[in-house]
Amino acid sequence: MPSDLPRAVQPLPATVITPEGALLRLDAVAAEVPVALVFNGISHAVMMCSPQDLEVFALGFALSEGIIDQAADCYGIEVQSLAPCGTDPEAPGISVEMQIASRCFVRLKERRRALTGRTGCGICGIDSMDALDLVPEPLPQLPDWAQHLDLAALQTAFSQLPQLQLLNQQAGAVHAAGWATPAGQLQVALEDVGRHNALDKLLGHMAHQQMLGQPGLVVMTSRASYELVRKCARMGLPVLATISAPTTLAIQVANQAGMRLFGLCRGPRVVRYSTL
Amino acid sequence: MPSDLPRAVQPLPATVITPEGALLRLDAVAAEVPVALVFNGISHAVMMCSPQDLEVFALGFALSEGIIDQAADCYGIEVQSLAPCGTDPEAPGISVEMQIASRCFVRLKERRRALTGRTGCGICGIDSMDALDLVPEPLPQLPDWAQHLDLAALQTAFSQLPQLQLLNQQAGAVHAAGWATPAGQLQVALEDVGRHNALDKLLGHMAHQQMLGQPGLVVMTSRASYELVRKCARMGLPVLATISAPTTLAIQVANQAGMRLFGLCRGPRVVRYSTL
Repeated sequence: MPSDLPRAVQPLPATVITPEGALLRLDAVAAEVPVALVFNGISHAVMMCSPQDLEVFALGFALSEGIIDQAADCYGIEVQSLAPCGTDPEAPGISVEMQIASRCFVRLKERRRALTGRTGCGICGIDSMDALDLVPEPLPQLPDWAQHLDLAALQTAFSQLPQLQLLNQQAGAVHAAGWATPAGQLQVALEDVGRHNALDKLLGHMAHQQMLGQPGLVVMTSRASYELVRKCARMGLPVLATISAPTTLAIQVANQAGMRLFGLCRGPRVVRYSTL
Repeated sequence: MPSDLPRAVQPLPATVITPEGALLRLDAVAAEVPVALVFNGISHAVMMCSPQDLEVFALGFALSEGIIDQAADCYGIEVQSLAPCGTDPEAPGISVEMQIASRCFVRLKERRRALTGRTGCGICGIDSMDALDLVPEPLPQLPDWAQHLDLAALQTAFSQLPQLQLLNQQAGAVHAAGWATPAGQLQVALEDVGRHNALDKLLGHMAHQQMLGQPGLVVMTSRASYELVRKCARMGLPVLATISAPTTLAIQVANQAGMRLFGLCRGPRVVRYSTL
C-alpha cells in the first residue's frame, strides 16, 4: 500500500466533560475514508472504510459480491491515494483499482446495465428487490466438524478476539471479523468501521492465503444482518457466530443456505438461531 | 400503514446453549425487511429496515438526502406490502410510494442521470466521490442554548433513552434516535435495525409534527459516522450526541457545518469532539 494513505486511527483534540470540569486532550479516533472500488477502470462503488488492509478488502468484496468467482480472476490490485476529493482539501479519498478477468467484467457490466435500466425506467419496488439476491444457493451438506461445534469452541474463539482488535482497543467503534478453527482457536481478525467491510477484509485475506475451504468458522463483533450471512453463504462458509443478535432475515437466509448461525455469543451461553 | 406488514419483532425458535445443556425456546428477533423507496413511480433505493414508522422514515429520508426541501414538497405517502419478493415466498418486501413536487422530481432525475453517467462511463473514483457530498453548507451561528448545553442535560437525555427503546428491549440489535430539549428532557425516540434509518425516522417524525426549528438535540445509541452528522447538518440541527465513538470524518463534517458533536456519552462523562 502507498505510504501516503491516512492512518486508520488518528489523534484528534477532544474535550472530556465530567462533573469535575472539562479537560482538553488528544483522543484516538477511527478514520473513516471513502474508498472507490474500480474494476477494469470502471468505478463500481464507494465504501466508507478504515484505511488499512484495502487490497484484501477489495478482493473479498469482489468475491463475496459475486463479481469474480475465484481469487485467480483478479490479476492485480492497486491502492492509490487520490488527490484531495471534492472541494475539501482535508478529506482524502482512496481508490482501489482491480484488474479482473474479461469474463467477470463483461458480466459485471451486464448486471450494472440491467440495474440501471430497472431503477431508471419506471419499474419499481419488486424488481429492484430481486437485485438484492435474497435467496442463496444451498451449501453442500454441513460437514462433520460444523455439526459438532460446541459451546467451548465458540467461547474460546470469542475470548481471543479482543486481543486481535488493535484498532478497536485504541479508538472504539470498530468492528472485527475473525476466523477460528473448529476447536475455537482464533487464527486472524480483520478490522473496519463497517461490519461488512471487516468481513470482506477477512474473506479477501483468506482467499489470498488460500485458507478458503479449510474447516472453521467466522466470528464477528457485530449483530448478524442478512448481508453478512449472504456473504458467508456465497463463499461456502457454513458457520457464522456473532456477539450481538441476528435479524429475522439473517436467520432465514442462513436456513435457506443450510448454514449454522449463532448469535448473542457472550457470557456463559451462545444461542443457535438456525435450524441446523 | 396496512395491516399485513410484517411485525418489527417476531418470535422465532432459538436454542440457548449453556454448560448445562441446550434449551429450545422462542426468542424475540428484530425483523429486517427490504423497503423500496419510490418517488413519483420511480424506485430510488432499497433499504433494509425495521418495518414500522415507514411513512416518517420515507419523509425523513427524502428531507435528509435533499430530495425534497420541506415536508410540504411531499404530497402523499403510501406504504404497501409487496407480493412475496423474488422467488422466496417467505421474504416480504415493502414499497413506500411518495408523491413529491415536480420541481424536486425533476432535480432527482437529473441527479440520477448524472450519477449513472459517471459510474457507467469510465470516469472513476474522484467523480463518484464528489457525489458523496462530503462538504456541508455551514449552519447559522450556534444558538445560545446549544452553546450552553451542559453535562447534566446530556446525561438526563441518555438516561431516559432506554425506556423508549421498545424494540431493543425485546430483540436487541436495534438502534434508536431521540430528540431532547436543551434541558435534556427526551421527547421522542424512533427505532430501526439501521442507525441511519432510525435517524431518518426521527427527522421525518419531527418534520411531520412541525418540530424542526425548535431548540433541542439529537441523541443516538450508535457511534457517530459521517452520514449521521451530514443528515443532521442538512436539516439544520446543530447538536448530535452519540453513546459510542465518532469517526474522523464525522468530526470533520461537524466542524465544517459548525455543529457540536458529542460522543462516548456514557458513565460519568461525555466527550466533545467538535471545535465548537
